[in-house]
Amino acid sequence: MKTYRQEFSVPYRYDVHFTRDVFAPGNGTLADEFARAAGEMPHRVQVFLDSGLAEARPGLTAAVGAYFEAHADSMRLACPPETVQGGERAKNSRAAERVMESLASQRLCRHSFVVAVGGGSMLDIVGLAAALVHRGVRLIRVPTTVLSQADSGVGVKNGIDAFGMKNYAGVFAPPYGVIIDPSFFDTLPWSYWIGGVSEAFKVALVRDAEFFAYLKSHAARLRARDESVMACAVERAAVLHLRHIASAGDPFEFGRSRPLDFGHWSAHRIEILSGYEIGHGQAVSIGVALDSYYAHRKGFLTEVEFDDIVGALLACGLPIWSGVLERRNADGSWAILSGLEDFREHLGGILTVTLPSPIGGRVEVHEMDAEIVLEGISRLRQITRSCSML
Amino acid sequence: MKTYRQEFSVPYRYDVHFTRDVFAPGNGTLADEFARAAGEMPHRVQVFLDSGLAEARPGLTAAVGAYFEAHADSMRLACPPETVQGGERAKNSRAAERVMESLASQRLCRHSFVVAVGGGSMLDIVGLAAALVHRGVRLIRVPTTVLSQADSGVGVKNGIDAFGMKNYAGVFAPPYGVIIDPSFFDTLPWSYWIGGVSEAFKVALVRDAEFFAYLKSHAARLRARDESVMACAVERAAVLHLRHIASAGDPFEFGRSRPLDFGHWSAHRIEILSGYEIGHGQAVSIGVALDSYYAHRKGFLTEVEFDDIVGALLACGLPIWSGVLERRNADGSWAILSGLEDFREHLGGILTVTLPSPIGGRVEVHEMDAEIVLEGISRLRQITRSCSML
Repeated sequence: MKTYRQEFSVPYRYDVHFTRDVFAPGNGTLADEFARAAGEMPHRVQVFLDSGLAEARPGLTAAVGAYFEAHADSMRLACPPETVQGGERAKNSRAAERVMESLASQRLCRHSFVVAVGGGSMLDIVGLAAALVHRGVRLIRVPTTVLSQADSGVGVKNGIDAFGMKNYAGVFAPPYGVIIDPSFFDTLPWSYWIGGVSEAFKVALVRDAEFFAYLKSHAARLRARDESVMACAVERAAVLHLRHIASAGDPFEFGRSRPLDFGHWSAHRIEILSGYEIGHGQAVSIGVALDSYYAHRKGFLTEVEFDDIVGALLACGLPIWSGVLERRNADGSWAILSGLEDFREHLGGILTVTLPSPIGGRVEVHEMDAEIVLEGISRLRQITRSCSML
Repeated sequence: MKTYRQEFSVPYRYDVHFTRDVFAPGNGTLADEFARAAGEMPHRVQVFLDSGLAEARPGLTAAVGAYFEAHADSMRLACPPETVQGGERAKNSRAAERVMESLASQRLCRHSFVVAVGGGSMLDIVGLAAALVHRGVRLIRVPTTVLSQADSGVGVKNGIDAFGMKNYAGVFAPPYGVIIDPSFFDTLPWSYWIGGVSEAFKVALVRDAEFFAYLKSHAARLRARDESVMACAVERAAVLHLRHIASAGDPFEFGRSRPLDFGHWSAHRIEILSGYEIGHGQAVSIGVALDSYYAHRKGFLTEVEFDDIVGALLACGLPIWSGVLERRNADGSWAILSGLEDFREHLGGILTVTLPSPIGGRVEVHEMDAEIVLEGISRLRQITRSCSML
């Protein structure tokens, strides 16, 4: 028997730009990405807009058109911008196929560009379609929600839900570039505005104690929709996220450890149990509170730290508990606990849950004591009830 | 405006083993892949078999079962092997979805394994499904046809046809491991046996003059189904393919040059125009002959070299011409020439066709003179006609 060992590395590089008013004709950020890109100019580009965003900003389609006119030397629209349904409920294979069909009908080639402007779900849908077509069309993401700017929009993953499982189908596909523009925040519904802060808490709690202190001390201003505070929080969270991907040694997660998933095993389950009535950000907030309680009970956080975390989440206007946490299956078992099994499967057989230890640091555990999880749910309900009575 | 540059590399490594009788209980090649793999043993494995293979080898399913029994310490079947329809016609999204659904129903996790045993199309279907599920389940390929062993089965791509385009949707996804076993050849239909040799010719002509000389001098034995000659040819072609991926500096083809696509712009078109009556291998043989004529007319090959190439293909029993080359579109234009446009699009906007110059070396051209292509078609018809009159 003979064996040939095949070995190579694939280098990735992309820029994440922080700007304002990305589609103002004088803003060169997006146009410069095309001007610098290899290949014949003007580059052919297909733009997709989140339906929620397009509704909230009726002038956006025209603004995109005008922007392309103003930079016609480096880029041109293959067709007018199309809208793609946003929101967690829309993340299915049919949505991705529709985008692929649209790219096929415009005969977009491998070195053309797709620009996706919207929230995390919509970026996931368009991202997966762009990654699959011709085995990868160049994608520029313009995340427009707090959540997507702080987290998934700067990362390397996409995914859609399938066969009843969140993010069941997807690929690792670094973007060609990312543009972060907080001026999109002003049309965000409240739940999207504040929901994204939970991902900032998540990354702060296991990576950056100083950032947690910032979030805690600015909670009231975040709740009051202070855009400059939010822009700071988003930038810091995004940079921590980028650093984790580049420096943890396993950007495509071939191994088992995923410390940026703190609070997520229950969050995914909460979303599904609520029929997506509870948004991803709110679900993550509850998941972060629940795992913080667990970390406290296991001796990784002090009681003061746990109180601080829950207090800061509540001060922002984020939830820490929901009735769906107490939902039972037909056999009497707790529905939330099957989230642990789904998560174990998604991770690859061995459960790994990251917990803060202490705030800003982290520890990994490979099993979760169901009794303590249920105790945490009861404690979080108590706190929530006592708050609402004030 | 602030910009953060994100930069990282993703390392890949996999072994390509050459063995015989891979599912004989005493053959440790496959079992050793599991025994060496990170994670808890026994590993959970789902096996998919090419329907054509399973029909031709009725004992295969039982042999796979017995193999897993014999190596129960390191691996266990999640469920009995399932069959997946093989052949170019089956490479569609519905087929990939069925495999994904099966993986979902067995709740295969990210660190479980998929083993795919079959020809190139079936490996593509299962490969895409495995790459998408949980953003990548570990895949071991056991290519069973000459074509897939010599070429795609050892490579880093998968893909399905969609919206009328070959390989429109797919990803770059290196396997976890590959096992090449020429003992599968004895049940191959003739067209699959000899069709795969065309990929060996392809890679020899632009990479390895000595290998071309070997193929030429062994054409009669290849035609006579000499398995040991075929095993040599397959191994050399596979190693050249591996070397190209690892050493050309662009394993995931972010750039434009793809010298292993020699002869392929017309081959893809020929397959589609024939309604897949002409197999991929035969289509590549015609494509190689056509581009060799073109190379000769452009001064890259001598007349003797062109005659040698065509003579060697014919001596193997491979076609160099088909009536579909002369098919016209409704507007009178030549249907084959739209293959150039499809190919340009697939490559990313700029046409790059690799031609041998001389045999074993290569040159890239960025346009193809339609007159000379048509002249080549006519010349190949002439040669084919004169052969058939002998």
